[in-house]
Amino acid sequence: MALKNLLLLAGDGIGPEAMAEVKKLISAMNDKLGSGFVTDEGLVGGCAYDAHGAAISDADMAKAMAADAVLFGAVGGPKWDAVPYEVRPEAGLLRLRKDMELFANLRPAICYPALAASSSLKQEVVEGLDILIVRELTGGVYFGEPKQIIDLGNGQKRGIDTQVYDTFEIERISGVAFELARTRKNHVTSMEKRNVMKSGVLWNEVVTQTHKARYSDVKLDHMLADAGGMQLVRWPKQFDVIVTDNLFGDMLSDIAAMLTGSIGMLPSASLGAPDVKTKKRKALYEPVHGSAPDIAGRGIANPIAMIASFAMCLRYSFGMVAEADKLEGAIAAVLDDGLRTKDILSEGMTEVGTVEMGDAIIAKF
Amino acid sequence: MALKNLLLLAGDGIGPEAMAEVKKLISAMNDKLGSGFVTDEGLVGGCAYDAHGAAISDADMAKAMAADAVLFGAVGGPKWDAVPYEVRPEAGLLRLRKDMELFANLRPAICYPALAASSSLKQEVVEGLDILIVRELTGGVYFGEPKQIIDLGNGQKRGIDTQVYDTFEIERISGVAFELARTRKNHVTSMEKRNVMKSGVLWNEVVTQTHKARYSDVKLDHMLADAGGMQLVRWPKQFDVIVTDNLFGDMLSDIAAMLTGSIGMLPSASLGAPDVKTKKRKALYEPVHGSAPDIAGRGIANPIAMIASFAMCLRYSFGMVAEADKLEGAIAAVLDDGLRTKDILSEGMTEVGTVEMGDAIIAKF
Ligand SMILES: CC(C)[C@H](C(=O)O)[C@@H](O)C(=O)O
Ligand SMILES: CC(C)[C@H](C(=O)O)[C@@H](O)C(=O)O
Repeated sequence: MALKNLLLLAGDGIGPEAMAEVKKLISAMNDKLGSGFVTDEGLVGGCAYDAHGAAISDADMAKAMAADAVLFGAVGGPKWDAVPYEVRPEAGLLRLRKDMELFANLRPAICYPALAASSSLKQEVVEGLDILIVRELTGGVYFGEPKQIIDLGNGQKRGIDTQVYDTFEIERISGVAFELARTRKNHVTSMEKRNVMKSGVLWNEVVTQTHKARYSDVKLDHMLADAGGMQLVRWPKQFDVIVTDNLFGDMLSDIAAMLTGSIGMLPSASLGAPDVKTKKRKALYEPVHGSAPDIAGRGIANPIAMIASFAMCLRYSFGMVAEADKLEGAIAAVLDDGLRTKDILSEGMTEVGTVEMGDAIIAKF
Repeated sequence: MALKNLLLLAGDGIGPEAMAEVKKLISAMNDKLGSGFVTDEGLVGGCAYDAHGAAISDADMAKAMAADAVLFGAVGGPKWDAVPYEVRPEAGLLRLRKDMELFANLRPAICYPALAASSSLKQEVVEGLDILIVRELTGGVYFGEPKQIIDLGNGQKRGIDTQVYDTFEIERISGVAFELARTRKNHVTSMEKRNVMKSGVLWNEVVTQTHKARYSDVKLDHMLADAGGMQLVRWPKQFDVIVTDNLFGDMLSDIAAMLTGSIGMLPSASLGAPDVKTKKRKALYEPVHGSAPDIAGRGIANPIAMIASFAMCLRYSFGMVAEADKLEGAIAAVLDDGLRTKDILSEGMTEVGTVEMGDAIIAKF
């Protein structure tokens, strides 16, 4: 069996604690199943800045480019609030996305049955929720140029960002959404603001054409992004797959995640295009939650989102569908057993720390 | 007493039905209280396009510029989905905002006690909610140039929008937010994406400076806009005044409105700067909801948001604070009496149409 090269970038805050649980899982899979994972590690975010003044070093970028998959923890924290924009912790993540051309960000918002009651939404609104947000990740206002602050004199400055989308970028991300919809409820909702943005007009046009040309078997709806946000709050179960741009995707996927009451639980996958020869996609897997500096180092962080991100890695990078299913089942099982980290604790449940939660999931796997 | 000149732009869909109730109210105020309102009317949106090929005519724009206040209904509908971008219904609203320099959009998200149970969120999360979103309305990606679609050849196009903010724009909108906070719970939360946008970096910097220089008595927090969206869903009562840019404000105010379960009820005010001599502000008042073409013309639309927008007009344009309070009280009273239009109907309540709802509010006023 070919070796599977993983680069682990744990990052800042609770990143390392969460990643430690995945490392244990990887060792267990190598030992018991002979899964053949080979891991290397690197620095990203604030810790990388502290070590060598950049949010990710060229050497670690090279490792990421060469790996079969990257597992990413989280970046940032108050310690680095004042570092220059170009080397702020987030710059490491953005460089990984851009240089690896990870244009397709898959963010499932599922509501774990055991947690449905802990959502701020009514139980009947979120119970059984299973949405997949497909967010464009290498274009839009995140990367468009000009992106600068100009000094106009007289104490006036001008901040500029540029939202840019080309036809091919919209085509490829909508293709991913349609393909994934076929494996689910076969329904895609595309969101933009075509009533005020020209990039939204083009987005709408290209998604419509792509649908007509190659995916007319899939149900397609269009929604303005502001209305989409409202509908997510009103009745999220109307959605199956949502496809949207980088900035709307950032907002909408966070809102969708929060609906589920399971924000500490949700994973994501960021995928590149399949290589023409090898068919392999570059890929990075990361929790939706952030670095949570306020609870870092206390052993109470919830490792489930990181572990669920590894499950996505098994599924999308290595085709290990059975193992991914089993790992996701193990997560659901420990929740059913009543184990809870502090962030998801509710009455009558058993509070456990990061390590115990990781151990319990591995034991069920 | 000086005459008060109002321009009524009812627009499309349910706009005219909702506006009709405000007209009755204005007549009643003139007759019984001698309020001295003088009204004129104009066309905006799809109906303006049908009449003269533009989303608002120059003549109606001139009337809007001259009026003491504009009351705006709603624009758009499937009938005009295919009209050219430049003359689409929304263009009328955007021209009004831009030409009248209505940079400050005030969107209260309040949860009417009688409706708390109808939110998709748990009652304890939204009961008593009272947030004010202060959205910048004449800048950002809505109006920045270049804004265009370029044909790149080879079947490729490029859609471009530009997010631009100058220091003075951020200064004046945050000034409005701080002033309003002083009349409320004295707490402002500013939202941007400074971790990916240069305009967000400038936004954060200028809000911080404005606070330090002139409003240090007000509590100020900064939040990333994606995290802000999550926090709105998780625990909205943590907010008092939220100040944010045009596009984030569009998304976040719609989400905040939906939280309350009262989306058909919420008004908004769009204000310009006070005139140097007269101290008067140009102003436009409109419901947060849209034109709802699916229910237009059936006499079932909820006129409350339009009436509540007129209450904001009394308060902000004419300093008629007592009358505004009384009108808002009348709205709450008819709800307490159990009157409901179809959109907010729940068990045990009395269903009424648009006209009956308007009449009932006027009777309580
Ligand atoms: C950390 C930040 C740059 C990032 C983003 O805005 O994309 C985060 O919010 C996310 O959603 O992954
Ligand atoms: C109609 C549309 C142009 C408008 C906007 O995007 O500003 C609307 O959504 C709003 O929030 O007032």
